[in-house]
Amino acid sequence: MAAPGTWSLAGKTGRDVADEERRRRGCLIIIGGHEDRDPTRERSILREVAKHVRGGKLVLATVASHRPEGYFDEYQKAFADLGLGNLVELYVEERSQAGDREKLSVLDDAAGIFFSGGDQLRITSQIGDTGIEAKVRALYERGGVVAGTSAGAAVMSETMLVKGTSKVTHRIGDLHMSPGIGLLRNVIIDQHFAERGRFGRLIGAVAHDRSVLGLGIDEDTAAMVEGDAFRVIGSGAVYVVDGSDVSYCNVADARSASALSMHDLRVHVLSDGDRFDLKARRPTPPRS
Amino acid sequence: MAAPGTWSLAGKTGRDVADEERRRRGCLIIIGGHEDRDPTRERSILREVAKHVRGGKLVLATVASHRPEGYFDEYQKAFADLGLGNLVELYVEERSQAGDREKLSVLDDAAGIFFSGGDQLRITSQIGDTGIEAKVRALYERGGVVAGTSAGAAVMSETMLVKGTSKVTHRIGDLHMSPGIGLLRNVIIDQHFAERGRFGRLIGAVAHDRSVLGLGIDEDTAAMVEGDAFRVIGSGAVYVVDGSDVSYCNVADARSASALSMHDLRVHVLSDGDRFDLKARRPTPPRS
Repeated sequence: MAAPGTWSLAGKTGRDVADEERRRRGCLIIIGGHEDRDPTRERSILREVAKHVRGGKLVLATVASHRPEGYFDEYQKAFADLGLGNLVELYVEERSQAGDREKLSVLDDAAGIFFSGGDQLRITSQIGDTGIEAKVRALYERGGVVAGTSAGAAVMSETMLVKGTSKVTHRIGDLHMSPGIGLLRNVIIDQHFAERGRFGRLIGAVAHDRSVLGLGIDEDTAAMVEGDAFRVIGSGAVYVVDGSDVSYCNVADARSASALSMHDLRVHVLSDGDRFDLKARRPTPPRS
Repeated sequence: MAAPGTWSLAGKTGRDVADEERRRRGCLIIIGGHEDRDPTRERSILREVAKHVRGGKLVLATVASHRPEGYFDEYQKAFADLGLGNLVELYVEERSQAGDREKLSVLDDAAGIFFSGGDQLRITSQIGDTGIEAKVRALYERGGVVAGTSAGAAVMSETMLVKGTSKVTHRIGDLHMSPGIGLLRNVIIDQHFAERGRFGRLIGAVAHDRSVLGLGIDEDTAAMVEGDAFRVIGSGAVYVVDGSDVSYCNVADARSASALSMHDLRVHVLSDGDRFDLKARRPTPPRS
């Protein structure tokens, strides 16, 4: 992650494609929040996480939360019969701990990491540009699983939505973005998508940079990214907002209190089993 | 309006194009609810209504509400300095009154009618297929203004959304539609659009009949339809959801609890001054 003060939208194209390819080795499981954790039910998303961890060790990173105590217990119960080798908690009280040898070693033999929910800025401020971020990257590059729900989902993109009003048409100027961990490039992620009426703000983010694909992920729904494609898992939908063919947008001209105008957006509503090729920007229905 | 019991989606193509053309003579002002009514402010939408009434008589139809008393006072204040000839209330306590000569005569010399908010089913159940509906149609056909806000907006289309969960991705089977007054064909209208997170349900309505264009109208925002086009007025946006190019949709195959999947929707976000050609299904930016 670049330092928060120096990062800019323009900066993101600096790294090259080869670098991008090299990174896409593991599996990202990006969850829109409130995934089913009830041990008496199917838990399709957590089941997929466990399947990809293949009997190995999963680290539950509760850094997004100020009071993470409850999370570990809840996930331990939820994962109990899903075939993990073991589940270990990683919490960072202060940024200064993010270089501790003991904290770092937790990730050495991990097959996956799962970021729980909370405040996405807390994740990046605690571990951004630290040894932990480097270890997460290394885990991903050696084929590991990086999963995250809610705030833990937002940080996976290079640019993350931090603030922006829900349930209102995007007003030009009303959007706060911040650098994420950046495992997934050219994508911006929003969570709790239909549930919090965030269509307007995701469209707003795409209006500001049309080279970026908007991914709106519903609760109990995940985009599972492997290689250049993702598959949808869960009970809701993943919305893809593609501004490639936009014929008009007033972002550059209009006053900052104006409502957004943008013509010819392409939108895909993807549900369980649908696939999406991030490179070609094309969806594929299940079983085809 | 066909009788609620006999109406069906298939039925709506029965009338011919000449009939459609004949109808499009007046002006429809379709408002997403909560339009600015504060007499100390601009009131751009009500100003446009008054402008089209051209010093004539505007009938305020409060039939959508069970307790309409407050509305008339509020609109009287809001329209006070906007140059109406006069403002007269039309309320129908029971459907049996909708044929009363006295009620009907209110519309004889009207230049426009404005349906206030409330329950859209109350509008159609009180005046659908009655003398009042015929008079509204006649007013429109002789070039008058038919305006409506919130529930009053929903009834203008042939098919109106009555129920359907907001803030959730559309579930196949979770949608209740009912016949509207039908001044605007091949369109389905949803109001309080961004504010109530209704993207999912409008997309759901379009999934069920892709020949229909979805119009989602924000609060304090209106689509003003004249001829085959509309112009956007107000502080929010009008969302157009066009399913013409949809490449895949699971509505026919999937179980009714499944989340919707629909690929290649075209979406336009239109704000103040934007125009949209309903026949060509194409938007035009302001001043072009």
